[in-house]
Amino acid sequence: MASSSGANTEQPVDARVVRTRNDILGAALDVLIEQGSAAVTHAHLAKMAGYSKATVYKHWPSRADLLRDAFTRLGDMPHHIPTGDLRTDLIRELTTFRTGMDEQRLDRALAVLVDLTTSEPQMIQVRNKLARDGEQIVRELLQPYLRGSRLEAATLMLCGAVLHAALMHGEPPSKRVIAATVDLMLSALDVDQSV
Amino acid sequence: MASSSGANTEQPVDARVVRTRNDILGAALDVLIEQGSAAVTHAHLAKMAGYSKATVYKHWPSRADLLRDAFTRLGDMPHHIPTGDLRTDLIRELTTFRTGMDEQRLDRALAVLVDLTTSEPQMIQVRNKLARDGEQIVRELLQPYLRGSRLEAATLMLCGAVLHAALMHGEPPSKRVIAATVDLMLSALDVDQSV
Repeated sequence: MASSSGANTEQPVDARVVRTRNDILGAALDVLIEQGSAAVTHAHLAKMAGYSKATVYKHWPSRADLLRDAFTRLGDMPHHIPTGDLRTDLIRELTTFRTGMDEQRLDRALAVLVDLTTSEPQMIQVRNKLARDGEQIVRELLQPYLRGSRLEAATLMLCGAVLHAALMHGEPPSKRVIAATVDLMLSALDVDQSV
Repeated sequence: MASSSGANTEQPVDARVVRTRNDILGAALDVLIEQGSAAVTHAHLAKMAGYSKATVYKHWPSRADLLRDAFTRLGDMPHHIPTGDLRTDLIRELTTFRTGMDEQRLDRALAVLVDLTTSEPQMIQVRNKLARDGEQIVRELLQPYLRGSRLEAATLMLCGAVLHAALMHGEPPSKRVIAATVDLMLSALDVDQSV
């Protein structure tokens, strides 16, 4: 249980503050994914993360701030460093999304986030940033081959294949389907696939 | 305002009953999309649709039944009759999804549905049926060219491109991007695109 002393004084961002924020935001994501967004309240998170309600309020005066920061953490997915082989790099990147859907239940978090953009307009920015960051590597990998509407379409097709399976089928695509997705795209790009 | 007489007797499904059910399910979808799933209660829907609460309870004793039937209505999207030209037919089909996202706010409804599958397991069947029905024409159009994992991948890429843009960018793909999506897929299939 963290002390709530000094709750009313400004403090530099030290390791303790970072840990407190991380604990509470981690609890917020867990609650969001397991119990839905309605369960994300200051009182419930204080209990889950083992801090006082005052501490949660101190860091996030409003629930909207709290949700914004929790979703921003979702964007911190590890991306691979490109190897230079387009097929390998695209498969790795789509596999990163797949792992996020499986292990972090990114699918449920994204569904909640989209739902929240209706009632909390500031979530639109959070969603846009998450989409931009998530798509960035795929877009960069495709950029030497495509531009304009074709680059946009190809990015949507690759990222969308993983999202659609996770959200609408309840599980992200298998390794075989991810490989087939990338191979169809490479055929479209007419890239030399011989090893 | 509908009469609630006969609320306790079994009646044949006549035109009046069909109209009542349609009115209430239509209101349920409206409320769901505009106010979120938490606002879908018997009392609120009775008020919105202009029926007594008893009437709503008579048709759907549980909220889960009501949500299931409301989402099942979402699947009733008009599909085009294929013309035989693959490019035209795929573009038309993706445009149907796009129109659903724009006009029926299918994106918000789908986000709510995915969120609900966590707390209401019977929604999983509803989601699966919606996905199957939604993808069916795209899958059939691609079937002469692909099978197995490649057919699955191509279906996910086309449907996913529309879903990803609608959910993660806040608007479905433009006409140009839909055309580019279909053209990339046709290049991958190596179908003769000359007119």
